[in-house]
Parts: sequence; C-alpha cells; structure tokens
Amino acid sequence: MDIEKPAITPYLTTRKLNPENQETPIHFLRQTITPTEYFFIRNHFEYPLQTQEAFFLPIAGEAMRPTIFTYQDIIRMPSKHLTLPLECSGNNRAFFDPKVYGEQWEDGAISQGLWKGVPLKDLLALIGLKSTSLEVVFEAYDYGKRKDLAGKFHFTRSLPIQKALHPDTLIAYELNGKPIPYKHGYPLRLIVPQWYAMASIKWLKRIVVIDHHFKGPYQEIDYNYFPYKDNDLGKTPVTQINVNSVIQQPVNRSILDNGKHIIEGFAWTGTGVIIEVEVTTDGGESWHKANLVQEQSPLYSWTFWKYVWKVPNKGEYLIMSRAKDSFGHIQPFKAMWNRKGYGYNGVYTVKVKVE
Amino acid sequence: MDIEKPAITPYLTTRKLNPENQETPIHFLRQTITPTEYFFIRNHFEYPLQTQEAFFLPIAGEAMRPTIFTYQDIIRMPSKHLTLPLECSGNNRAFFDPKVYGEQWEDGAISQGLWKGVPLKDLLALIGLKSTSLEVVFEAYDYGKRKDLAGKFHFTRSLPIQKALHPDTLIAYELNGKPIPYKHGYPLRLIVPQWYAMASIKWLKRIVVIDHHFKGPYQEIDYNYFPYKDNDLGKTPVTQINVNSVIQQPVNRSILDNGKHIIEGFAWTGTGVIIEVEVTTDGGESWHKANLVQEQSPLYSWTFWKYVWKVPNKGEYLIMSRAKDSFGHIQPFKAMWNRKGYGYNGVYTVKVKVE
Repeated sequence: MDIEKPAITPYLTTRKLNPENQETPIHFLRQTITPTEYFFIRNHFEYPLQTQEAFFLPIAGEAMRPTIFTYQDIIRMPSKHLTLPLECSGNNRAFFDPKVYGEQWEDGAISQGLWKGVPLKDLLALIGLKSTSLEVVFEAYDYGKRKDLAGKFHFTRSLPIQKALHPDTLIAYELNGKPIPYKHGYPLRLIVPQWYAMASIKWLKRIVVIDHHFKGPYQEIDYNYFPYKDNDLGKTPVTQINVNSVIQQPVNRSILDNGKHIIEGFAWTGTGVIIEVEVTTDGGESWHKANLVQEQSPLYSWTFWKYVWKVPNKGEYLIMSRAKDSFGHIQPFKAMWNRKGYGYNGVYTVKVKVE
Repeated sequence: MDIEKPAITPYLTTRKLNPENQETPIHFLRQTITPTEYFFIRNHFEYPLQTQEAFFLPIAGEAMRPTIFTYQDIIRMPSKHLTLPLECSGNNRAFFDPKVYGEQWEDGAISQGLWKGVPLKDLLALIGLKSTSLEVVFEAYDYGKRKDLAGKFHFTRSLPIQKALHPDTLIAYELNGKPIPYKHGYPLRLIVPQWYAMASIKWLKRIVVIDHHFKGPYQEIDYNYFPYKDNDLGKTPVTQINVNSVIQQPVNRSILDNGKHIIEGFAWTGTGVIIEVEVTTDGGESWHKANLVQEQSPLYSWTFWKYVWKVPNKGEYLIMSRAKDSFGHIQPFKAMWNRKGYGYNGVYTVKVKVE
C-alpha cells in the first residue's frame, strides 16, 4: 500500500476563539524552547489591525527628550537574548477549589521562548528620565470593550520605574530566532522576566513615563489577588511568578504497567532559581528528591526534572511534585484561593492505577 | 504593515500521543458534518504498518462459499451513504464521580461523518451464511500488548448476527467524500450505526462468522459496564449509544454580559431519534424546551438545538441540558457509574456568572 505513516503531533488546546485563547500541549513537549507554533495564545480582544504606525514607538512623559524610536533604530541597538517562560497569571485556574470564573486554563498557559530585544533602560537613558519618574505605562494596539465599564479600552499597564530599568526588561522584536509572530505581538513586545505574562505587553503602541500611580482597569481591576469572594479587602497586584512545577508524565488517571516508570516534568519560579524538586508517590507520606536536569539552573529558564519510580505493588497511587526556589519559596499543598483565579501554584497532583 | 490577520482555528485536544488519542474541539464546531481534520482520534495501539494485503478482505467461517473480497470488488458494489456520529464509549469519562481511570476524555470524543460503504449483509449473502451462524468476528490490523494479559492481540470484536445483518451496518471505504484517511481506518472500516465506536473497527483484516460467542479481551474484559468497584457482578456489554446532549456555548465558568444569550448545542442517541431537548438555567428548578434545528430528526444524525436566554439579573447561573429520545430514554441527573467509565450521559452542566 506504500502509505507513509502520518506524523503524530500534539496541538494547542482550544479554550476560546473570539478572542483567541489556546493552551500549549505542555505534557507532550520536553524541549527547553517551546516551538513557536506551540506557544500558548492569550488575548483580551480581537487581533488589532496593524499599520505602518506600529514601526514607530513613541516614548514620552517625564522625559527630557521625548523620542519616537523607529523599529530600525531599535533593531540596530545593542541587544540581548533571554530564554524564559511566559506564564499567564491564570495558568491552572481550572484547578482552584472552590472553582472560579474566567478562562478555564489548565496547565498549558505557559511556554518558554528565546527572546531578543533591547533593554528598555537603554531607551529610557536616551530620552533622559526626570527625577519625578515613578512608573512607566505601556499602551498596546489591541483594544475593546469590558463587561464592567462603558467605553473601549486599549490594553494598558504600568511597571514601577525600578522594574522598567531592570537590565533584562526588554523591548523585544524576535522570538526563537525570527521576528515575533503577529499573534505574539509583532513588531514590538515588552518582555518582563519573572513576572506573569500580563506584564509582557504585545503590539506596543506607546510608552509614557509618569509621576504618579497608573490606575487603568488592567492595573486596578484585573490582575489583582482578591482573597475574598464578596469584598475587595486585601487586594494586591499580581506581579512575580510563584514557584511552581508540573508533572508532564504520567498523565492524570492513567493506567500503568507494573515495573519502572519515569515521573518527569519541569519547575520554574519568578524569585531566584529552582534549587529542589521533590516527588511523592504515596500522597505526601514520603518525599524524594527528583533529579534536576540542569544542575545549576540558569536564571529565568525552567528546570526539567525526573524521578525514577520503581512501583512496589499493583494499586492506586497519588503522585505529587513540589518545587523550592532559592528565595525559600515552596509550593503549598493548596494554592492561595483568590476570586479571579491568579497565581495558582499548589503541588501538582496526578493519580494513577498500576495493574 | 500590510499584515493579513492569520486564521483563528480550533485544534484537536491532545490526550495521548503514543498511541495517538485526540479529541474533537466540539465546542467550536457547529457543522452537521465534522470536517475530517477535526475527527477525534482514538487508538489502542500504534498505527499498523499496512501492506497490499489490506486491499483483500477474507470473509470465512460458517459460510457456504468463503470468499476473499478485493477493495475493487467492494467499491463496485451498490453502496449507501450514512451521516452518523461516532462516539467513543469513553466520551465524557473525565466527568464520572467518583473519578475512574483510563483516557480522560472530556466531551469531544465524538464526531459526525458522512460514511459511504457496502452493507455487510450484501457480502454475507454472497458467501452464503450457514444456519449455525451466531456472531461475526472482525479482526483489525492494529495490534499490541495489553497490561493484563501476556502476548500480543489484534483489536478484534464480534457483532451478533442480527446486528451484522442490519442493512445499515457497512463495510465503509469513504469518509466525507474521500477515501477514509489512514488514521481513521483506510482502506476498509466497519461502521456500526447506533453503537459506540469501539464496534466500528478500523483497518479491517478479516471477518469470520462463528457459531459460538466470541470471547476476546476487547469483547469480554474491555467495553463492558462493571457497576461495582471491587467485583465483576452485573457486568454487561457496551453496545448502543446512550441518549445524550452537549452545551457547546456558553462554555463552563465563563463570564457573560447582562442581556440576551443563546445557549446552544446538539443531542444524539443510539435508540430511535431525539424528540426533545430541555434547558434549565436555574439548576433544575424549571425546564424549558429548546428549539430543535431539524424539526424531524433524521435517523442516526445528531440534532442541533438552541435556547434563547434572557438573563434576568446579574449573578451565578447553573445551566443544564437534557435530551429525550423516541424510546422514552432521557438523560439522568447523574450518569450510571461504572468502573471503566463507559457510556456517560448525565445532564450536561455549565456554570456561568453574569456581570
């Protein structure tokens, strides 16, 4: 019959199409760099209609020399490459208990890319920041309606001046060795290492340095932890990525042979580096150190780990992983519940049956 | 910038790659015929290496004239087109409570195709069935190991002679107007309307008519309802599709505007036709008839339905759908639990929040 076997490939998992929200098939990728076509896609609005204007990036506000940088200016400046995960702050939202509303992301709203760009601080040095500079506001081309406010809004958020001046906060123009794809922010995207990905604003339209606290709805209403269901007490902004891990294989509720199995996954954090991943196969009675695939975890990049499990007997097993970082943060048994479902990082759990 | 907006398309949802098991993105397709590239994929084993032999189909056993039919013989015989859903008997397995082991299919292990083939009864007439014929055994080319038995097994199952002789039980060779794709059983596949899809055997290798009950593991171990966790009492084979429905939109845990919303989905059954779909938006206090998109449901094909919901107030709403068929079957509030997780058909439930 001479039929070539067709390729068996994973696909993005579709959560919504209008706007487009799709997850990375995270259980089926063991690469350090997520191939671009497998990058998770998260949008608040439909894709912006782009124009030539997007190749001109104005930076103004509390500046001695407000400047319109061209794309050509930017790609000719000294650049930097960074390998880092972007994680949606709603990653794993489906696992909150009690359940919350919003996009029901499972564990694939995270992807790791090789980003190339210019440190924002170099652009800010050129415009000459005034001493009154407090925050830097980033406005994107995408816009649309909200359910809670009248009018239309561009996606707009700010960074504290210290984070904006961090040498690794980039105005990026390449992902995985190519111009950033349209769906991921072409031509210019902010990349903010160690923060959840709502900070890494796509389709940059303009940047404004301000002397006060920015209060747009994507700063003050969304992307805040609200610990209580019915009131706003204890509200705090979502910023750094919480220490976290995922078990890629085996998948939940799978049936395994008796014998030896490899439990494997990766771990990441927004504070320091991953120093340890522990695995339990008895629901938390005993914990074992997993092997970290990179001995010394490079800053930012996720760390693959594996643990060889010799299954003692047939039966049901509750397997968990928990990561620890160099700041002493460790995954909790139960993630801190919050009304909008951000920052989930409970120990990762799968149940399997050995026959 | 002259960038064409890229297409926004859904993808299959990956459950496993080895062997390949992927779901249809069922919430994002409103077509009567599922496009072939969106057909769910369910395999027990890796894909078989096919040979020229697969164009020859032997039918033997309790027959006066055992015959090897060629592909060319079959495609020259009078044929029949049928539009029908294939549903994996494990569809919705992830929703059983208590949870069960096995592939965690959500609601997309179902697709509807236009199948073309020859009634099996016409081939059986040509070979001349003996009066001792009790079952017809179908052996497939795919094979592999099981976790519970030594050795390797081809996927093999039988049909009772009455079902095998049903005029709509087909030896199919086309799906959606083209030769059946390799992944879906090329060149010849059995199609058994109204039964769960384990019966519609791909990559047919040979057919044997027997005078006794077939006892292979895919007949006697898998694809049986076991009502108890720890014993095999009450075991019954999985056959006909249970009456069922899915709410395609809105999706679970979504946040909606105040105003008018369309609740829509489809319903199907393996016994008779769908005669009614009811929707509740208050957790089952009151039920409303949905509009069936085809007034008179064609035999086999699924029935789209919709219900226009005027949201009275902001708040949380528990929406459910339940279908009823012409045999008087109706979806239960809670699906009948069984150890291997087959035949789930509990009322379909989504919770939404209106802001």
